[in-house]
Amino acid sequence: MENTFQVHFNKIIVYDEECFQGRHHEFTSECCNVMEFGFETVRSLRVESGAWVGYEHGNYQGHQFVLERGEYPQCDAFGGSNAYHIERMTSFRPISCANHRECRMTIYERENYLGRKGELSDDYPSLQAMGWCNNEVGSMRVQSGAFVCYQFPGYRGYQYIMECDRHCGEYKYFKEFGSHCQTPQIQSIRRIQQ
Amino acid sequence: MENTFQVHFNKIIVYDEECFQGRHHEFTSECCNVMEFGFETVRSLRVESGAWVGYEHGNYQGHQFVLERGEYPQCDAFGGSNAYHIERMTSFRPISCANHRECRMTIYERENYLGRKGELSDDYPSLQAMGWCNNEVGSMRVQSGAFVCYQFPGYRGYQYIMECDRHCGEYKYFKEFGSHCQTPQIQSIRRIQQ
Repeated sequence: MENTFQVHFNKIIVYDEECFQGRHHEFTSECCNVMEFGFETVRSLRVESGAWVGYEHGNYQGHQFVLERGEYPQCDAFGGSNAYHIERMTSFRPISCANHRECRMTIYERENYLGRKGELSDDYPSLQAMGWCNNEVGSMRVQSGAFVCYQFPGYRGYQYIMECDRHCGEYKYFKEFGSHCQTPQIQSIRRIQQ
Repeated sequence: MENTFQVHFNKIIVYDEECFQGRHHEFTSECCNVMEFGFETVRSLRVESGAWVGYEHGNYQGHQFVLERGEYPQCDAFGGSNAYHIERMTSFRPISCANHRECRMTIYERENYLGRKGELSDDYPSLQAMGWCNNEVGSMRVQSGAFVCYQFPGYRGYQYIMECDRHCGEYKYFKEFGSHCQTPQIQSIRRIQQ
């Protein structure tokens, strides 16, 4: 029985059919594999509070996508961009360090924190429009909060969720951006809202 | 011959093949139908400066999508979200009033500027996380700058570009959001960067 004095900072409800139909389950902490709860996959979801990251496969592997508060009636709504087609979400967890007001990170032109650098504490739908030198980021350090980085401008393409309290906030080269990352191409970056 | 003293605030280069191959053409103002320039459609593009809006069909009809500075190597990169599949871009124009610093709009719960309202001058990847009452917006007024509104949180789904200097900045009900708009569902809104 739920303790009525507990405040849930993170709550997500997942459904195994589109449009919030079928079997459903509420989570307030991470889920390593939704199949253990009798789901084949998640096909719609509601984020009631907090910010979450979802993963295509179990154990937080494969494509990742940020999930902020609101309603996502089918995979296409939460799977991101049609630059790649996501048909499933199998694991997910809260982004505990997300903090819209206190977000800072540094991006570097090259691997291992070399080359030109840029300090970010806002949203950049086009890094190049704000003065960044090209269409790639070689390495990053997240000092506080959490950001999501995207392949293309306008928050499109593969998503890489970067958190200050994972990986020590240090991402030395593009393969550390995410297990699905194939190139250092990043053209937009924004803060994650909590 | 280009006048070397002219400053181009808006420049886009469109290609009829993916990955910046094939026939290409540079534009510094609107293009009502790219087929008049010998293109079947646009399959990749580079925005060199300014912010643009692209449309699926000629004469600025059909699905619309915001294009900020950077590189878009295929339709999937600029077409938006896989909630709908865009295979072509046929017309496009600069968003002249885009101004990242001076952007203000008011959203209303119901049509005709009725019901609860919210004043926006920032980016909202989740309207509900910032206190909005539901997953819809009934009507809007844009006082300055330009915004893009999205069906789903995290800047996903159908896009509606809202400008202060078109439509008098007044959008009384959802069918005025865009010719492709079928419902008043809007869950994220952000400023357009110039």
